[in-house]
Order: sequence, then C-alpha cells, then structure tokens
Amino acid sequence: MYVADEYRDLAETALRFSKDRLLPHYQAREAEERYDRALMREMGELGLIGPELPEEYGGLGLTNVASGIVTEAIAYGDFNVAYVQSSASLLGQVLARSAEKALAAEWIPKIVRGEVILGVGLTEPSAGSDAARVKLKAVRRGDHYVLSGEKTSISSADQADGFVIFARSGTVEEGARGVTAFFVPGDAKGLTRTRFNDLGSKIVGRGSLFFDDVEVPLEHRVGGEGKGFYEVMSGFDFNRAVIGLMCCGAAQASIDETWRYAQQRETFGVKLAQHQGVTFPIAEHEALIAASRQLCYHTLWLRDQNRAHTVEAAMVKWLAPKSAFDAIRQCLLTHGHYGWSLDLPHQQRMRDVMGLEIGDGTAQIMKLIIAREAIKRISA
Amino acid sequence: MYVADEYRDLAETALRFSKDRLLPHYQAREAEERYDRALMREMGELGLIGPELPEEYGGLGLTNVASGIVTEAIAYGDFNVAYVQSSASLLGQVLARSAEKALAAEWIPKIVRGEVILGVGLTEPSAGSDAARVKLKAVRRGDHYVLSGEKTSISSADQADGFVIFARSGTVEEGARGVTAFFVPGDAKGLTRTRFNDLGSKIVGRGSLFFDDVEVPLEHRVGGEGKGFYEVMSGFDFNRAVIGLMCCGAAQASIDETWRYAQQRETFGVKLAQHQGVTFPIAEHEALIAASRQLCYHTLWLRDQNRAHTVEAAMVKWLAPKSAFDAIRQCLLTHGHYGWSLDLPHQQRMRDVMGLEIGDGTAQIMKLIIAREAIKRISA
Amino acid sequence: MYVADEYRDLAETALRFSKDRLLPHYQAREAEERYDRALMREMGELGLIGPELPEEYGGLGLTNVASGIVTEAIAYGDFNVAYVQSSASLLGQVLARSAEKALAAEWIPKIVRGEVILGVGLTEPSAGSDAARVKLKAVRRGDHYVLSGEKTSISSADQADGFVIFARSGTVEEGARGVTAFFVPGDAKGLTRTRFNDLGSKIVGRGSLFFDDVEVPLEHRVGGEGKGFYEVMSGFDFNRAVIGLMCCGAAQASIDETWRYAQQRETFGVKLAQHQGVTFPIAEHEALIAASRQLCYHTLWLRDQNRAHTVEAAMVKWLAPKSAFDAIRQCLLTHGHYGWSLDLPHQQRMRDVMGLEIGDGTAQIMKLIIAREAIKRISA
Amino acid sequence: MYVADEYRDLAETALRFSKDRLLPHYQAREAEERYDRALMREMGELGLIGPELPEEYGGLGLTNVASGIVTEAIAYGDFNVAYVQSSASLLGQVLARSAEKALAAEWIPKIVRGEVILGVGLTEPSAGSDAARVKLKAVRRGDHYVLSGEKTSISSADQADGFVIFARSGTVEEGARGVTAFFVPGDAKGLTRTRFNDLGSKIVGRGSLFFDDVEVPLEHRVGGEGKGFYEVMSGFDFNRAVIGLMCCGAAQASIDETWRYAQQRETFGVKLAQHQGVTFPIAEHEALIAASRQLCYHTLWLRDQNRAHTVEAAMVKWLAPKSAFDAIRQCLLTHGHYGWSLDLPHQQRMRDVMGLEIGDGTAQIMKLIIAREAIKRISA
Repeated sequence: MYVADEYRDLAETALRFSKDRLLPHYQAREAEERYDRALMREMGELGLIGPELPEEYGGLGLTNVASGIVTEAIAYGDFNVAYVQSSASLLGQVLARSAEKALAAEWIPKIVRGEVILGVGLTEPSAGSDAARVKLKAVRRGDHYVLSGEKTSISSADQADGFVIFARSGTVEEGARGVTAFFVPGDAKGLTRTRFNDLGSKIVGRGSLFFDDVEVPLEHRVGGEGKGFYEVMSGFDFNRAVIGLMCCGAAQASIDETWRYAQQRETFGVKLAQHQGVTFPIAEHEALIAASRQLCYHTLWLRDQNRAHTVEAAMVKWLAPKSAFDAIRQCLLTHGHYGWSLDLPHQQRMRDVMGLEIGDGTAQIMKLIIAREAIKRISA
Repeated sequence: MYVADEYRDLAETALRFSKDRLLPHYQAREAEERYDRALMREMGELGLIGPELPEEYGGLGLTNVASGIVTEAIAYGDFNVAYVQSSASLLGQVLARSAEKALAAEWIPKIVRGEVILGVGLTEPSAGSDAARVKLKAVRRGDHYVLSGEKTSISSADQADGFVIFARSGTVEEGARGVTAFFVPGDAKGLTRTRFNDLGSKIVGRGSLFFDDVEVPLEHRVGGEGKGFYEVMSGFDFNRAVIGLMCCGAAQASIDETWRYAQQRETFGVKLAQHQGVTFPIAEHEALIAASRQLCYHTLWLRDQNRAHTVEAAMVKWLAPKSAFDAIRQCLLTHGHYGWSLDLPHQQRMRDVMGLEIGDGTAQIMKLIIAREAIKRISA
Repeated sequence: MYVADEYRDLAETALRFSKDRLLPHYQAREAEERYDRALMREMGELGLIGPELPEEYGGLGLTNVASGIVTEAIAYGDFNVAYVQSSASLLGQVLARSAEKALAAEWIPKIVRGEVILGVGLTEPSAGSDAARVKLKAVRRGDHYVLSGEKTSISSADQADGFVIFARSGTVEEGARGVTAFFVPGDAKGLTRTRFNDLGSKIVGRGSLFFDDVEVPLEHRVGGEGKGFYEVMSGFDFNRAVIGLMCCGAAQASIDETWRYAQQRETFGVKLAQHQGVTFPIAEHEALIAASRQLCYHTLWLRDQNRAHTVEAAMVKWLAPKSAFDAIRQCLLTHGHYGWSLDLPHQQRMRDVMGLEIGDGTAQIMKLIIAREAIKRISA
Repeated sequence: MYVADEYRDLAETALRFSKDRLLPHYQAREAEERYDRALMREMGELGLIGPELPEEYGGLGLTNVASGIVTEAIAYGDFNVAYVQSSASLLGQVLARSAEKALAAEWIPKIVRGEVILGVGLTEPSAGSDAARVKLKAVRRGDHYVLSGEKTSISSADQADGFVIFARSGTVEEGARGVTAFFVPGDAKGLTRTRFNDLGSKIVGRGSLFFDDVEVPLEHRVGGEGKGFYEVMSGFDFNRAVIGLMCCGAAQASIDETWRYAQQRETFGVKLAQHQGVTFPIAEHEALIAASRQLCYHTLWLRDQNRAHTVEAAMVKWLAPKSAFDAIRQCLLTHGHYGWSLDLPHQQRMRDVMGLEIGDGTAQIMKLIIAREAIKRISA
C-alpha cells in the first residue's frame, strides 16, 4: 500500500490508529455533525497531523509523500477526519511558506497538536472558484485591512478556528494579481458564519462566511499584496494529490470489507467469492484504485523534488475521486439490500467521497488543466 | 417519450398530474416516511392506478404498455409514488389471474381506487429470493392454513394493507413446486411487522414480517397448492420492465432539470450549455435512457402479445436502473456543490433508484438469466 | 429481434439469405475489394433492396421500419453488403422525393433490381461535411450546369454508377441555402475517381471525386436550386437509424457466435459458458445492443409517422456504432488469440463497424445535435 | 514520464532512438513481417537490450525499473520492436537465474548485443497456458532428453534463434511439478515451425512448434527437473509489468500525436483543441495511462526490492493493455476518417496492442489472480 519503506513506522501508526479508533465509529461520528476535538489532539500527539511541517513549528519535517501516506491511512478509517487532517497540512504549509514568522509560530504548533482547525476562503457566490473574479474587498486603513463581502461553499465554515481568505486588494482589472491572502481568526469581529445541508461530509460541514468590515492587522497578510494568490495556489496541487489519496483510502476500506463479505456470505450454498460475476468487478475496481494511488504518490514525490506536478495533480483529482466513488458503489451493490441500508458504511463513504468529486476543482476544471498542459508540452 | 399514440390522453393526464402534484413535493414527501393515502385516491380517481386491470374489477382494461406509460410518467414526479403505483399493477394482475373471484372482487377495486396498498412476501433471511428455498411454513388445518415463519426485505412491510405471501405447503425436496401463494391482510392476527433504515425510498420502507401461526382461510390461497409460485412469478417479468420505466422516468426528470440549469447558469460569463464538457455527458446519458426506455416498452409489448419476454425483462432490469443511476449522478455533478446539497432532488433520486438496482433481482441475477436464455436460443 | 409482426416474412427471407449466402463468405468477400454485382441482383430479385421505395418505381411500398428490418438482417451476414443495400434506400428515397419523374423512373427501378449502386457526394477536403461550406462549383450554362471541384471521403467512390452531388450554385454568403443537389452518372465526362486505403469496409471503398467541368443537364438537378440541401438532408436522419441497425446486426452475429463458442469450448475441463467472467460481459453487451436496436426502430417508426426524429436519429448514430464496436471487441477477446487471428470474422466486423462510428456524422456531431435539440425542447 | 532520476540518461538514449529510428518507420516495418536484425544490433550497441542483465554476461547490471523504462521508450516508437526487446529481458533473466553457467555465458551476451532473439514455449493446443496440463513429452535418455509434441500460439515461432520450452518430464498426476524447462535452439533437428495470420504484431508473428524427437543435452535443462516451471514462472510477473509499460508507451505516442493534431487541425474555423468534446476524452485517457504507468513501475520496484508483486503484476496486465487500447481507439476516432485510413499509425497500434490484451494471460486470468490474492490477504 505504501511506496516508501522509510515511512513504514509512521504508516503503521497511522493505520493502526485508523483501524482501532476511527473505523469503528465512522458512522456514529456522522451524527455528531462536528469534529471530535479530543480525537484531533490524540492524532496530534501521535504525530499524525502535518508530519511534513517544519520541525521549528512542531512538525516532523518529513516529505509530502509522508504526509500523503498518513492521510490515506486516516481516510481508511474516516474520510472526514482525513479531510480535516489534510486541511491542517494544506494550511500549515501555506502559513509556513508565506505568513510572517510570528503568525506561523503562533498557529502552526497548534495545528500540529490538533488544537485548532483552519479553513480556506476562496469561492464566492458569483465568482465560483475563479481567483481572477474574487470580489470580497480588502481595503487598507493604516496598519490594518478592512474586509467586506461574502465567501461561500467553505468547508468547516462554522467550526474552523481560523481561515486563509482571498480578497481583492487591487482593482477588478488586475484579475488574480489584485488578490491578496489574509489570515482571519474564526472569532473575528464582524464575521458571521452559516452551515449548509449536504448529502455527505456532515462532520465537516460547508457554509458561508459574511464579512462585515472585519479588521485584519497588517501582519496577518499571508504573502505579499497582490501576490498572495499565486503563492497560496501552489498549495492546491498538493491538496489535489492528497484528496486523491483520501479517496483511495476510503475506497480501499470498502473493497477490503467486500472481499471479506464475499468470502463469508453464502447464497444457494456457494460463497459469493466463488462467483466471478461478484469478484471480477471488485478486482477491476481494486486495480483502478491501486493505479490511482501510485499516481497520487508520484505527484507528491514530484513536489518533494520541486518538479512540476500540476498536470499529475489534475489527473488524480479527476481520476481518484471518480474511481473511488465507482468502487464504493460496486461494494455497496455487492452487499445487496444490506449494503443499501444505513447499517453499513459504504453508503456514507459514497456520499462523503462525492463531495470531493466536486470540491477543490470539478472534473471539468481538471480536464481543462490536463488539456492546457498537454498543448503546452506538445507546442514546446 | 411514448411509443403509442393510442394512449396519448392517458399519458398526458399522468404527466400533468406528475408535474403538478408530485414533482414539487418529491423531497418534502420523503420526510413523511409514509405514503400519502389521499394522493393515492386522487390517482385512483384519474384512472392512473392499474389501468390495465380488468374492467370488471374497476380497471380500464388497457394493455401492459399503457400501464408502463403511466408508471413512467408518475416516476418523473416521484419515484416512490411510482413504486406503489406499479405494485398495485403487479398485485392486481396476480389477484386477477390467480385468486378466487370473491377475493379479486373484494380487493382489486380498492387497489384501483387507491384505497389500499399491497405488498409481496418472497424473500427470507436465509433463502434470499430463491423460491426453491422458501421455508415459511403453511400447514393446512381444515378450512384454513396456518402460516409460521419470517419474511424479510419486504417493501411497504409496515404500511401495506395486504400481502401475497409465498409459503412452503409441501416438502423441502419439492423445491419451488412445494410453494403456495396466499393472500394475508396486513392486520391478520399473529402478523407483526418491522421497518429497516435505508438509504432511500423512505416513503416506501422495507422491513420484516413475522408470522406467528397466522390463520389464512382456504379461499385466500392464490393459485393452486404448489402451483402458486410459477403462476405468480410470471408477474415478475412485467415488474422488471416497469421498474425499468420508473428508472427512466426519474432519470429523465434529472436530465431535463440539468438541461434547464445548463441553459441558465453562467460561469466565467459563459452559459454552461456552451461547454461541450458539460453537455456531451448529459447527451450520452439521455441517449442511453432513451434506448433503455424503448427496450422496456418493447418488453411490455411482447407481454401484451403473449410472446416470450423473460430475456428482455432481465435486460432492462439490469440496464435501466444502472443507466438511470449513472445519469442522475452526472446530473448531480453538473450542478456542482449545489447538486450535492439536499436542496436539489438529484441526490434523492440517486438514493431512491439505487434501491431498485438491487431489489426485485440484482444485476448478477439478470445477467445469469440473459446468459441462460442465450445458451438456450443458440442450442435450439 | 423484430418489432413488427407484419414484416415477418420479409424479415425471414432477409435473414435466411443473410445466413446462407452472405455470412459464410463475409471474410472471403473482403479480399475482392469490390461489390459482388451478381449478389446485388439476387437481393433485388428477393425484394431485399429498397422495400420501402414506391411501387411505381418497382419497390414494395413498405415502411421505413420494414427497410430497417431488412438492412439489419443483411448486416448480420455482411456489414458491407448491408452498407450498399442501405445506400440504395437512401438514394432511392432522395430520387423518389426530389428528382424529376423521368430521372426517378430511369434509376430507381435499377436500384431496386440491384443493377446499380449509387453514392452521395457531400464532404470536401477543406469543408468537411458542413453543407454551409461546400465549395464545389455549379455554374448554370443554358440547359445545363457545369460542375468543378473536388469531393472526398466518398463511399463507393470508384464503384458507384451514379452520385447525388452537392454543389454551390449560389454565393458563399448564402451558406447551405446556396447549395443545390445534382445527379451525376459515374461515367460522366470530366469525372475522375480515386480510392483510399482504409482499415475496413474494403469492398465498399472510400475515395475522392474530381470534377473537371462536368456537364449536368438541368433535369438532373435533384430538388430546387438552393433547396437541394435541406430536402436531401432529411434523408440523413433515415440513414442514421439504418446505420444503427447495421451495427446492431453485425454485433448480434458476433454475439451469437460467441455464445456458441462459450457453450462448446472447454478450458480446464469446464465450459467457458460456466464462467460468469465470460458470460456476464457478453450479456451486458447483448442488452445494450438490444436497447440500441429498439431505439433505431422507434426512430424509423417516428419517421413513418411523419413525426420529428432528428434527436433519436442522432442518439442511435452515436450509441449503436459505439455499442457494436464494444460488443464485437469483447466477442473477439472472448475467443482469445483465436479471435485475434484473421481466421474469425470478429476482427473484420470491428474494423468495418469502426468506419461508421466516423462516417455520416461523428460522435461529436451527434452529441451536438442531441444537446441542441434538448435545449430547444427545454426552452419551448 | 519516468519515476527514476538515476536512469535519465538511459531513458533519453532510448527515447531518442525510439523517436528517430523507430517511430518514422513503424508502419513500413509492419509490411516486412520480420524483425530487422540490424536494428536489434544497433539497440544492443546502445545498451538498450537487457540493461538489467548481469554485467558478467554483458548487461549493465541495472534494475527491473531501468529495464521497464527502456521498454516503454522503445514502445513509443514501435510496439513490436519493444516486444522483442522485452522478450530479451525475460529470457535473459530466466537463463541468468536458472540455466547452467555455460549456457548462460553462451547466449546472454548474444541477447544483449541484439544478435539473437529467443522465445518461450508454454501454450499447447489442448492445455492452453495451464502449466499443470503440459503434455509435450521430455524423456530422459542417457545424457540427453528427447522432446516430442506440439506447442502453439508461440510468439516469434518462425524467427527465434532459441526457445525455453516447458515439457512434461514427470507424470500427468504431478501436474505443474512434473514440468521441466529446456533450452532448444531454433535450428534443432526435428523441430519444425509454422506461422499464423494475425490481426496485428505482424513483425513478431505467432505460430506453432512441432517437436519430432528433438534431442536436448542435459546441460540445456533450465532449472532442476520438475522445478523448471516455478522458477521460470516468476519471470512472468516481470513480463506482465513490462507489457503494461509497452502498452503505455504505445498509447502515449498516439495521445501525443492527437494533441498535436487537435492543435493544428481546424474545422469550421476553430481548432479542434478548442472543443472540450475533443480534448476531454483525450485528457481522461491520458490520466488513465499515467496512472497505469505508475502502477507498472511500482510493480517493477517491488520486484527490485524482492517483495511480492504478483497481484500488482496482474492488475497492470489487465489495466494497461485495456486502457491503452481504449486510448488509441479514441485517438483514431479523433482523427476522423483520416485516422481510420491506413495512413496513420493509430489503427496499427490498436491492432498490435490488442494481441497483448490476450497474450501472456487474458483479462479473466488476471482478475482471478487479483481476487485469489485479495481473499488470501483478507483471510490472513
């Protein structure tokens, strides 16, 4: 399951925690509709949050590959816990790379210890996820900025302890180059938040953020003015590969459970596992997940080598969530009506994974990126 | 949408009712977790229940094709209402064909008027849907039978006003030929019922029936002793084609809504409908639904001609639910996160349709039938 | 296999001819790289060419559905013979509808008797199949027109006895409305023809036509000046449905042969037909072909009723060739290396069918039509 | 494209050779229906044959990953040349591992220099590829064995300079444990060979070997008596991963050519590359090929680490040839009729790749292995 021997211990710790502490309560946890903060701190203690973050901020200073290994293992037990775990990496990396030292030193250690949860605010009602069209205004007033406007479709909107928010500090004409990133605590004055009602990922939640003249001190700017976007955006390629691994982890859990079921369940006096009509589709899905997984790790490895990986990230952001949804769906169907009942986790995994077929870039956007990069490569 | 001009009025009545009365409350109705009895009676008054049932019992004496046309139209507005509407046809046909006159004359008119809802009890915990392995015992005692045992995975288990139950009146060795069908009212003494918790079809519900020495009068036997099964089973081919049409109807609703959305929604200043990446997948799904639909009607037409249609029924029972699920899933994804929220009906249609990918014969069973019949045909 | 009882005799004649006279030599015939004219006349004698053409011109005056039934049956035995047989219908219909009486009376009876083969010339090197961009010039000079220019990718280019040619009689600005259709005999002075080297359909052949001041008498104009295109184009919807049926016929032949093989061939002491891993994919393909077939007949039935059928024609022109290719491919693979050798017909069917995934409108064009018509429908 | 920086030079040499020397004549070479021996020697001089073979025998002593990198690069230019190049690795590894020193020292250097081509003889007419059912007899007579019987479906049957042949030295009851491997030169007395007529891979060729009391000296036994099979069989896992890479290389060539075409070709005044309907399918296929490729390299890396890789090898032997066929097919279709003509290489790649969807283990066998190993893993 893992490409790298050097992280075997970390991988085993993560997988053991996932199977022992997460998997048994994956479905029960959904009913809470909130993160279990104690669980996050437990993960922090085990070094399972942001293992790639710098040691000076409490991380283990490992690679992106190592981070992906942990996230995949966590997703085996609980897709949503993996989501917040991977968000910690994304935001931790952004702060480590682009925030002022003091801000990073204040927040990253808390991230790593599982004490806080951060979110990202890019999408807006009329602009979608197009950075060039961000409207939320950031007006500089002396030693602080004033933010006003709205963000929507934000994960962990009503739970996060802080957000990295993209706002328009420049003119509309400047497009993405007029956009600056800011760190805004969840309890900032003038910030209100709502939650939507979604098909899945109910412990994460998705919602809107309303900024009513929220003051942000200068030192909470993340990256330079007008530069925030391109600096921060590079984190999304990391995120896409990790989302891919989350999906692989969740799908693998369903696949393993289905092999077990096929081996135990008899109909008409024969084990399901004796029917090629049952086993062949699962075998196909497992192969697709295995291939998707390797492309995810390859993407993270390229990132670790500081090599271009945008196209690979786009490939896995399309392929892995889709393949995972298809695999889990087949696992559900293989269990018959029992799989369709709320007693088994496949239906929840299907609902949860589907959210990330859409979030952080739809299939259409990923294919546009793949095609754009291919044309560039061919024309070079 | 319809193959037959002669049923144009009926089709229009059904579709108008479906769009006006059903579609707007499809999601609200789910929360009820029960059939709306007033709605059923309204459908009965419009001639939308069992239009193919004999005129002597209050039906319109139309064809199976006509019945399918109505069910498809109803499913456009509410998949679950279509389920109970089509069950009325299935059970009404069984009673008309195999029950004693008095029993038929008592129940079918109520079915047609939407006053009662009937269910079928075949599946058992250890026997699955294999008639040859039915264990629930039927022991004859004078002028009645005594039923004892358990049925499970029964649709409308806790709501139906009566059931056609398959029980073993003969020996285990007789297999399916030792099985007899009985009509049992929902309020029969000794009958208790439970409900499961499923991913979809919540207004239908699925559950268990427990028979604790339930007495059934001789005249409630449906078909001859030991013959009930093969007589009644022929109804399942009808049911498979109609399930196919239900799925086509539900998928078409999502497809139509998605074309509308694609025409209205703009991103980056361009209508979604201008992007081939958006429209081509919907076009493909619409074509598959259109082809599945025609095969469903062809199956019903063959039945109307008293020609063999078992293989066609198996084909559509596999193809139509699968194609519908895939189509609705793509429609959901095309709406982005908005489609994944509980605000839109696609997620419910996906959950509802999935139940009939499994119920009334899984994909595996359908492919076994197709292969078996093909080998027969080739060897002939 | 057939929807219509009234054509049972015709269907049986066609299928018997196909199985007895065509199927055994399907592969041998490929090596000829030419139509077998004697075979065509034989088909003519049996009433298998253009059965829907008017009785006054020697046809049987049947429906489009009847014509499709014959073509599907012929394609079971030989895809390429079916191609020329269906072209006879397409061209015969065009002449019957739009040509002057004398021209129709001269050529249609020969078509029906299998004495002549006609082709269509629309595509041009730089214009593709876009009628609005046709460049081949038609200049009127007294009682005749003079045609000059080039057509390419024309089926039967070097064999046909005559062509319906689209030429620009008006200005470029008039687009499709400046295009007129003409009938040009294959031996017209100034017409030269070439043949390409393709992967399949070698007995049909595809090539270019070069018009070097070819004179066409006024009475060989097909339809009014500038009106030819829209009149003639309506024949393409017919053609798309019939191409769909050709593909279904060819696929069914491979499917039937594969069921037979699965029933005969043993590996490791077990018949292939015992392995669900072998039979389930074939069952799936057979269901898809069955559904595609019904949509094809539905399209022709709509045409027979003078009802709109453009969207259905586009659906089957995409779905049926694609499904047929996929089915035949699986049949080939099921035969293992034996299927990949040139000894069996699957590889030829795959090569032949692929040509009509492209010809007469690619998948992209079909999806554009489906989407365009859906938007129209929704906006109505 | 390559996972390993340490082989960048080798990879570049291979790719440059492939693009300069192989790709331009891929189609022309097919007509020869024979290997180009001079080309093989040229490859040998560049170190492109068996780079993983031991240095003592003239190899470079590199890894299996390095060998795969070269094969993939070669397949980009010519699938069939890659086939013989990878066979050299397979057979060279078998001889290096299991043959007597003298035999290895005689043949491996010639393999590496491209002077000889070897084949494998496992399949028999009635036994298929089931080692347990091998019938070809090997009877020991003093200092040699006498082989009699038939092998079929052998690649390079009429061209190879030598074969590793599996023969039954023991009893039928011993199954695979009664099978011994022997090295037999192509010009051995009593050996006759034939060639079949296949859809693709015409420069490789497939055929039968007939053994009429062929004498094989004791020292040409490969591995111990009755042990040959399990020793040699381990080479097949290597081969499956390499076949996967060959398919990825061929598919990538078609994909690259298609991106180029999409960027150059205009229809209706717009570049094909502007149509999402054109680019999205190619983007999807490229992602699948990229994922398959990484799983292939992961498999070879596991082998290099002496870790189990049977299940991964089975996964890629199914996934990569299938994905490659699908990708190439889409590339062909994207080129329209031009792609379907024999002028472009896509049709040949499709025909060539298809042979390895079947050869060296069908999809069915791969899925059986995946399922078997999964059940083992789950039960552990």
